[in-house]
Amino acid sequence: MSGKISVAVLGATGMIGQRFVQMLEDHPYFDIEGLYASERSAGKKFGETLKVRDYEYRQETLDREISLMDLDHIARHCRIAFSGIPSELAGPTETELARKGVAVYTNAGSHRMDVHVPIIVPEVNPDQFCSVKDQDTYAQGGYIVTNANCASTGIVVPLKALNDAYGLKEVFVSTYQAISGAGYPGVPSLDIVGNVIPFISHEEEKMETELAKMLGTYGNGQFQYASFKVMANCARVPVVDGHTESLVLALRDQPSLEELGKALAGYRGEPQKLQLPSAPEQPVIVRTENDRPQPIYDVMAGTPARARGMATTVGRLRQSNGYYKLFALSHNTLRGGAGGSMLNAEYAYRKNLL
Amino acid sequence: MSGKISVAVLGATGMIGQRFVQMLEDHPYFDIEGLYASERSAGKKFGETLKVRDYEYRQETLDREISLMDLDHIARHCRIAFSGIPSELAGPTETELARKGVAVYTNAGSHRMDVHVPIIVPEVNPDQFCSVKDQDTYAQGGYIVTNANCASTGIVVPLKALNDAYGLKEVFVSTYQAISGAGYPGVPSLDIVGNVIPFISHEEEKMETELAKMLGTYGNGQFQYASFKVMANCARVPVVDGHTESLVLALRDQPSLEELGKALAGYRGEPQKLQLPSAPEQPVIVRTENDRPQPIYDVMAGTPARARGMATTVGRLRQSNGYYKLFALSHNTLRGGAGGSMLNAEYAYRKNLL
Amino acid sequence: MSGKISVAVLGATGMIGQRFVQMLEDHPYFDIEGLYASERSAGKKFGETLKVRDYEYRQETLDREISLMDLDHIARHCRIAFSGIPSELAGPTETELARKGVAVYTNAGSHRMDVHVPIIVPEVNPDQFCSVKDQDTYAQGGYIVTNANCASTGIVVPLKALNDAYGLKEVFVSTYQAISGAGYPGVPSLDIVGNVIPFISHEEEKMETELAKMLGTYGNGQFQYASFKVMANCARVPVVDGHTESLVLALRDQPSLEELGKALAGYRGEPQKLQLPSAPEQPVIVRTENDRPQPIYDVMAGTPARARGMATTVGRLRQSNGYYKLFALSHNTLRGGAGGSMLNAEYAYRKNLL
Amino acid sequence: MSGKISVAVLGATGMIGQRFVQMLEDHPYFDIEGLYASERSAGKKFGETLKVRDYEYRQETLDREISLMDLDHIARHCRIAFSGIPSELAGPTETELARKGVAVYTNAGSHRMDVHVPIIVPEVNPDQFCSVKDQDTYAQGGYIVTNANCASTGIVVPLKALNDAYGLKEVFVSTYQAISGAGYPGVPSLDIVGNVIPFISHEEEKMETELAKMLGTYGNGQFQYASFKVMANCARVPVVDGHTESLVLALRDQPSLEELGKALAGYRGEPQKLQLPSAPEQPVIVRTENDRPQPIYDVMAGTPARARGMATTVGRLRQSNGYYKLFALSHNTLRGGAGGSMLNAEYAYRKNLL
Repeated sequence: MSGKISVAVLGATGMIGQRFVQMLEDHPYFDIEGLYASERSAGKKFGETLKVRDYEYRQETLDREISLMDLDHIARHCRIAFSGIPSELAGPTETELARKGVAVYTNAGSHRMDVHVPIIVPEVNPDQFCSVKDQDTYAQGGYIVTNANCASTGIVVPLKALNDAYGLKEVFVSTYQAISGAGYPGVPSLDIVGNVIPFISHEEEKMETELAKMLGTYGNGQFQYASFKVMANCARVPVVDGHTESLVLALRDQPSLEELGKALAGYRGEPQKLQLPSAPEQPVIVRTENDRPQPIYDVMAGTPARARGMATTVGRLRQSNGYYKLFALSHNTLRGGAGGSMLNAEYAYRKNLL
Repeated sequence: MSGKISVAVLGATGMIGQRFVQMLEDHPYFDIEGLYASERSAGKKFGETLKVRDYEYRQETLDREISLMDLDHIARHCRIAFSGIPSELAGPTETELARKGVAVYTNAGSHRMDVHVPIIVPEVNPDQFCSVKDQDTYAQGGYIVTNANCASTGIVVPLKALNDAYGLKEVFVSTYQAISGAGYPGVPSLDIVGNVIPFISHEEEKMETELAKMLGTYGNGQFQYASFKVMANCARVPVVDGHTESLVLALRDQPSLEELGKALAGYRGEPQKLQLPSAPEQPVIVRTENDRPQPIYDVMAGTPARARGMATTVGRLRQSNGYYKLFALSHNTLRGGAGGSMLNAEYAYRKNLL
Repeated sequence: MSGKISVAVLGATGMIGQRFVQMLEDHPYFDIEGLYASERSAGKKFGETLKVRDYEYRQETLDREISLMDLDHIARHCRIAFSGIPSELAGPTETELARKGVAVYTNAGSHRMDVHVPIIVPEVNPDQFCSVKDQDTYAQGGYIVTNANCASTGIVVPLKALNDAYGLKEVFVSTYQAISGAGYPGVPSLDIVGNVIPFISHEEEKMETELAKMLGTYGNGQFQYASFKVMANCARVPVVDGHTESLVLALRDQPSLEELGKALAGYRGEPQKLQLPSAPEQPVIVRTENDRPQPIYDVMAGTPARARGMATTVGRLRQSNGYYKLFALSHNTLRGGAGGSMLNAEYAYRKNLL
Repeated sequence: MSGKISVAVLGATGMIGQRFVQMLEDHPYFDIEGLYASERSAGKKFGETLKVRDYEYRQETLDREISLMDLDHIARHCRIAFSGIPSELAGPTETELARKGVAVYTNAGSHRMDVHVPIIVPEVNPDQFCSVKDQDTYAQGGYIVTNANCASTGIVVPLKALNDAYGLKEVFVSTYQAISGAGYPGVPSLDIVGNVIPFISHEEEKMETELAKMLGTYGNGQFQYASFKVMANCARVPVVDGHTESLVLALRDQPSLEELGKALAGYRGEPQKLQLPSAPEQPVIVRTENDRPQPIYDVMAGTPARARGMATTVGRLRQSNGYYKLFALSHNTLRGGAGGSMLNAEYAYRKNLL
């Protein structure tokens, strides 16, 4: 008997699901009870469904069988469900699991704007975790916690650091998003080889609302959104993993670039204080070379080993006409996907919220 | 005797030089006197030096011999030199040619900030052409006219249209620039396959000054810069031709999106009135699909045939928090390179400025 | 009244279907009666379904409406159906159309191995056209003619030229196939960006049988296959259009490389003699540079304009250990797809086989 | 005092040099004495010169300073020089180092065809190591050992296994080579994005001779080449790391595909028996899926951790017309570059040949 908490992975054959499985190998708190997917994959071995390029699973993981999703079975055997299922399916499935008493940590967007459902990045808004207590299902032990969409997650920690230090007024963000963000099969190669697609469905709206929700507060049973403005332009580029984001910021104060860099590099949150297993020691890495961050060098940033792909890298800090300019990069299916929910669950575990 | 004006192409083996050659085939005003390059290429046939993917030269063009650059010879035989040579070489070479009485139309950046040298996009600032008369060499018939850098050119016509109609206050621009913008051999494949490089040397500074110079005025022997602010973030992406640019604009007025689209689509300048050979009938094309413009579909936009790659395509017109958002795309080595200088020379020809 | 033959395009929203439409614009023999597709696209305008990067359709083509496929309607109004529908659907649909008296020219593989159905490349085996007369439906005017799969088509003309001149014994072929060969959405970008996939379902078997069928004979109601051997290895690479193929050949004779080049460059077939509209003047172009053919330069080879993308380009002719080595390149959705069937229909038209 | 052997890395800022450095971190036999390069890089920190995407160096390695190449200094302080310098420079430099008593393990091609210089892959021809004793410089302790070119290395272990078991008669090989094989800056992005280049200078000649030299013998002061024939067609594709190779083989015997697979998967050589640090436990991995090997999944194959990228992966074993067909994949800068010479030096260390 391991003493670890039993967890289910929903959508285990998708890009996010496979990252959940990766992060759960040898996890100190959690044990995989089962890998779940649709009829199409049920019965296959996990190793027959691989889609992730840059991780080698252990043989016993490759040999695990994919099961058909059975909510009653999951509710009986798992305290947590990590969900990487598509949004259209995630809505009712996750609601039902919460009703059955399961703690759902999900990458899906379906419930992010629900009235008592938080979007948590534990370096940013761990206090909003308390909103789950106002969910109808909480009495039975069930609740839903979401991570933010991948493009918002990629910049929310630096924005939090700067908001704390200097007050954030306006965020102009343009994204260079990786193809893995669209899942598998996702973007047809004919559409993206040698191309830029200046449209990702609902992504700009998500960025403009999710960032404000996360940097806001929760009290009296409702979320109060932060008042800074976000203007987002989102585009897809031929990169496999790693969302690059161009930022122009209006701040209340006017720090020097050196101060700005220090505020970013020195920022630490609850995950760092608690030394959560998937928490990067330094959540925001500041590069001083003139051409970084780049996906090919920085996408896996983060130490220790369990936190690879969990740090955000920023670089090219500049000023122009009173605004601050920089580029940020983070891994969209690790920090911006499965890793986000994993860190949320680790935080809950350590805070006895499970 | 053709009656056409004899022109030299400098740097005829480079990406821009080869586009000059393309645009000069069967040109109604100009005749190629010679193709010039460095020792490395002199003596080769033009057809042995091809680097452009999507244009088929005529056999007689392919068979032309590349000559070693000889400024005296050029000055004796050519009224115009179209220059596609690298900036470090362009500075002294172009100065010397102007001294020798040649009208230099150049893509190089060396002289763009010179005190009496204009950066012309004839849809935008044909009136600034008069600044050449204040150049020291003008009395001998020599002068320098530059086209803007490729990323500025890609958005200056829509910005002009909106500035005229609604008053431009702030421009937040992030670029997704094609590899052909760096010339040949340019960007190593190891640096860009599957990657984004968030740095292009001096590009942001160029955008922040060149746009203001072009949208400003010339009088009393000096340029007066426009007062709107530009905040630029420039990045390279794995696209062959076509710079995509993300724009957020603050305008003085608050037009509806429909009005905005009409101001853009309806804009016409001097090249359209004069029906210059390389002028697109509609300089700014507005797409209404939800995922355009895209390099693979829109980079060659422009009619008639001689004006292919000379129109800017914009799309995704949106509003957010009082700002206007859109994406723009234009061909960086046609409209943003050789085609820019070609149009300048055509304008000069028709205005008897040659 | 145009005097042209009315034709239907089946699968008009797919990669091949859109190439059929391209080739039918202003066609001297054929008139598009209707564009047909499945429920998903019926009712849309053709211009809303575009997938081809490098061709600009006329506005009236873009405005044509896609109709739901109605075989009776097609049979009543069209002499020819050009079929670009998926193989699983093509089998019964094309059989039914032939039964209703329609001449079906198809890119689908379903009927290629049928007992009286020819695989025609008119430079190679126009004599096999007579096999249609043995099809059950011929009496009612209906029959099926197929073009070869794209990888076979890409090399069959050079192989025919060399077989005629020197006798072909063995063909070792490895392919570098473009993503457009898999149709749309086809290959997921996550599978092919920065990758090679050494497998294309059934492609090697097709090459090993279709080449032998085409270079064989038809007589006494059956096909006699050619006796040379084909050993094929097929792979997908991140190229948009254009199949490159590596060839090692064992010939009966031992020509010099110069003779080999002449046999290839000088080859002419029936389409050239008849000057069919889509026939390239020179079906096999021999490049002498040390690094050609390349997709980016040679994929659209072929003159006159209607025959762009219809020539095969070969290069790097070498000898090694008694074998001949070369590379070949041809456009997989023009010559190797829609263009192949178009040329077949043009041949039939001129031979009064319609 | 570590007791390890001091080694120099020549060309430490290049693609191969950086892989040497990677493989030397914490090496059980060898200690880096210095990193050497040309004037351009001398004085920089190693971390400022990074070009390899997928490896994270230790901080102390990143902080090492690059020194200007000083052969006397190297000869005084190093027993081994690992050479990753360009061939034109490698010829005289390596000769000079050997004269000064240094054991040179090189990736450069300059000396591969020298009369007493072996091309070693220790799974294949460790017995040819004895040829170094016939080198002029051997008395002073200096000699040169080369690894094969990357495309030959990628298939030589499977060929050796099959030659031993069934007798190799003919090898038809077509390559799909990665861009890292051309070094840095190497292939311009404009040449390879969305393209195949069917030419790599001298690569085919190297494959046709190096394979025969390695599978031959050394005796009486000279190499006897193996008698099987190699017919090679080499091409570059847009892949970062990993050469895929298509193979058609004529064997003396006619094993079943199952036997063939077993001969490949079961093959072990000296490195495996000696358990050399960089030796993969299983040098040839046989995949049974229908679409492997693929660069994105298999390029880093090899266990234990030090041997990642050192195994060759083969798949798609098939028969056709009496020939055997398969695809092979190996890492071109690890197994096919720095890792090859590392394994050679490890072998020499264990055999007391240093």
